[in-house]
Amino acid sequence: MIKTIKGIIYKIREMSGFAFVILKTKRELIQCVYSEEYSQFTLSEICENMSVIVTGEELADERSRTGFELRLVSFECLSKPEYEPPVVINNKEVATSLETLLDYRPITMRNAKESAIFQIQAGICRGFRKFFDDNGFTEIHSPKIVFSGAEGGSNIFKLDYFGREAYLTQSPQFYKQIMVGIFERVYEIAPVFRAEKHDTSRHINEYTSVDFEMGFIESFRDLMQTETRMLAEILEFLRKNYASEIALLKADIPTITEIPKVTFDDGKEMISKTREITDPYDFEPEEEKLLCEIIKKETDCDFVFVTHYKSSKRPFYTMESKDNPEVTESFDLLFRGMEITTGGQRIHDYNAQIAKMEDRSMNVEAFSSYLMAHKYGLPPHGGLGLGLERFTAKLLNFNNVRYATMFPRDINRLEP
Amino acid sequence: MIKTIKGIIYKIREMSGFAFVILKTKRELIQCVYSEEYSQFTLSEICENMSVIVTGEELADERSRTGFELRLVSFECLSKPEYEPPVVINNKEVATSLETLLDYRPITMRNAKESAIFQIQAGICRGFRKFFDDNGFTEIHSPKIVFSGAEGGSNIFKLDYFGREAYLTQSPQFYKQIMVGIFERVYEIAPVFRAEKHDTSRHINEYTSVDFEMGFIESFRDLMQTETRMLAEILEFLRKNYASEIALLKADIPTITEIPKVTFDDGKEMISKTREITDPYDFEPEEEKLLCEIIKKETDCDFVFVTHYKSSKRPFYTMESKDNPEVTESFDLLFRGMEITTGGQRIHDYNAQIAKMEDRSMNVEAFSSYLMAHKYGLPPHGGLGLGLERFTAKLLNFNNVRYATMFPRDINRLEP
Repeated sequence: MIKTIKGIIYKIREMSGFAFVILKTKRELIQCVYSEEYSQFTLSEICENMSVIVTGEELADERSRTGFELRLVSFECLSKPEYEPPVVINNKEVATSLETLLDYRPITMRNAKESAIFQIQAGICRGFRKFFDDNGFTEIHSPKIVFSGAEGGSNIFKLDYFGREAYLTQSPQFYKQIMVGIFERVYEIAPVFRAEKHDTSRHINEYTSVDFEMGFIESFRDLMQTETRMLAEILEFLRKNYASEIALLKADIPTITEIPKVTFDDGKEMISKTREITDPYDFEPEEEKLLCEIIKKETDCDFVFVTHYKSSKRPFYTMESKDNPEVTESFDLLFRGMEITTGGQRIHDYNAQIAKMEDRSMNVEAFSSYLMAHKYGLPPHGGLGLGLERFTAKLLNFNNVRYATMFPRDINRLEP
Repeated sequence: MIKTIKGIIYKIREMSGFAFVILKTKRELIQCVYSEEYSQFTLSEICENMSVIVTGEELADERSRTGFELRLVSFECLSKPEYEPPVVINNKEVATSLETLLDYRPITMRNAKESAIFQIQAGICRGFRKFFDDNGFTEIHSPKIVFSGAEGGSNIFKLDYFGREAYLTQSPQFYKQIMVGIFERVYEIAPVFRAEKHDTSRHINEYTSVDFEMGFIESFRDLMQTETRMLAEILEFLRKNYASEIALLKADIPTITEIPKVTFDDGKEMISKTREITDPYDFEPEEEKLLCEIIKKETDCDFVFVTHYKSSKRPFYTMESKDNPEVTESFDLLFRGMEITTGGQRIHDYNAQIAKMEDRSMNVEAFSSYLMAHKYGLPPHGGLGLGLERFTAKLLNFNNVRYATMFPRDINRLEP
């Protein structure tokens, strides 16, 4: 059968008497074969990174991922590259440093493996949205230029907004809580900004946050249950719809039925058996790793919920446990050694919220538009935020979140 | 049948001997009836804006939108409001000024009509994504903190990025073009920022841009065809899935088969018959309105594509027409009197792009990471951006884009 395909020539491999011409299309590498026998042009007329329309005869081929190869008859050149890439982008891996990989991101992402990473990331988002749609969540668009930070602290980008000081949002927290009063269940997948000066493998200064918030919960356990179900469905969605990318990346996509839960204190206790605890109020990155290893050994699960973080370490909107106000109705989700989610039940009662803010010597007045939601009635609610790039990185077993970020922003990087 | 429903009490209407208690859930108003006959509590125990779980007997009722009413037997209070709202939010309309509507957005959006607007906006996004998924577009996440503006000019927000000057993105333009070299077809629905000082009914300083970019186009006409199909499918999707919101808002959702096209010059010519032309290079808002009126009269279509805008008025990446380099292979889409989309074919050839930038005395070096895409080969491509809030506003026949923006940002407004 004669077939016409548009694509970019990924690789030309000359053999004796013929050549393999690999064509890259939206999500596939297609094996074409050039031979003087049936190709009506000379091989030197085409080159790698040329955009073409090729015509040829389709032949079934079991060894090919696509199930066929194309015997090239003719081609039309649509666009020619002016230069050869400064790094080799059509081998199995882009064999270079992370720095170079990122410096040349506009072309290193053309590598089949590199592009599969971001195809999977797009798949993760599709999976999230499918779950949200199926479960009555409404998408919201909250502003990124804000008058006050959700998390507070110094790690916030400032900008001049027509002569007034404004900030880049650290989280859609206030807005999603407000919107629970309107739609009961809401979600947003959008950029957030953290001016952290850390230069680590876990931090980037702009990332994509998957946030949801839901009303009428009975406890924060409802949120963990929802997240468990959500992740289970997403991983299933990926297995079903991204099999070739998963195979190419040799990705180990876990299956989830239930996720173990440990309290913060129990987690610290488990860790203390092999490592000295230096900060009793929060986890250090090494401790998160260690805890995940312990849980993996005990339960064979790659995920673990840590619950009841200390009140002093959680933001002012976090609900405290009734029987012990020193701890909160909150949780983190750790995945393969790293925190990917923070969530919890929020304070919905106006007076309780005001009291806690005053306790923390906060300027209540500055939050008056946020507090409108509480003042005029808000159902019990809670939610969580998940870092898309961290989740992708851990899912694909990368040791640096930048590998799973299209165009990372960090303290040293603002380009490309 | 006994039924239990969670929701927020929207309105209590006392009649003689009984009361209507309207409950607001995710997307519905549910009519409940209180009567001393069968309700096992006193009416004064409940109030508007209380979050409750009600239990009652479901009775079929044709007059109700939901098809039933609930005879209240008992209720459980989950959360009580501390104050009564300062504006009436449970009448048919929130009868107040735009300023007040926006100042109290966290609660005015609880009004059934107001929340229907943003339910429809969420539906528009679902429609967009369905179209993109069905047509082989991959979602991307491009950075919002950038090293250089896509559109240039003074209407760009600056921020201090760890001692370096950075900007908030005006458009994902560069990134979506780069990503065409990787995924062939890409889309993004994300915030963009314009530091325009205009205080008009058409402008906000942060808006949600729906962007797509596609490779292997034959001409910019492919883009208009794709947009036509996309909009037709979205409007159909809304009619099918948002019927109750459409009815509540009395929205006139048009049906599209084809969208008329006029060139910029012909458009000006048509306008000149009733209005003096003062700017021959661009449209004024009044001219866009007038042109839409003329087209509506002639073709009964609410949309019109205007093509071949002047080269001098389009950005440096816009492709010029072969037979007349004074004009471009570009278009705007006007809808009910306002521009909602700008799109066009881009220059894909490296040398042609460099030449045009030098012609404009641009600092080519500053764009080197963007130009990597061209340098190492990029297929012919083009795309467009559509303003989500403008589209929503026009679809619902609002005279100000702020009515269709959850939390608008403008020169005077940074809150809520």
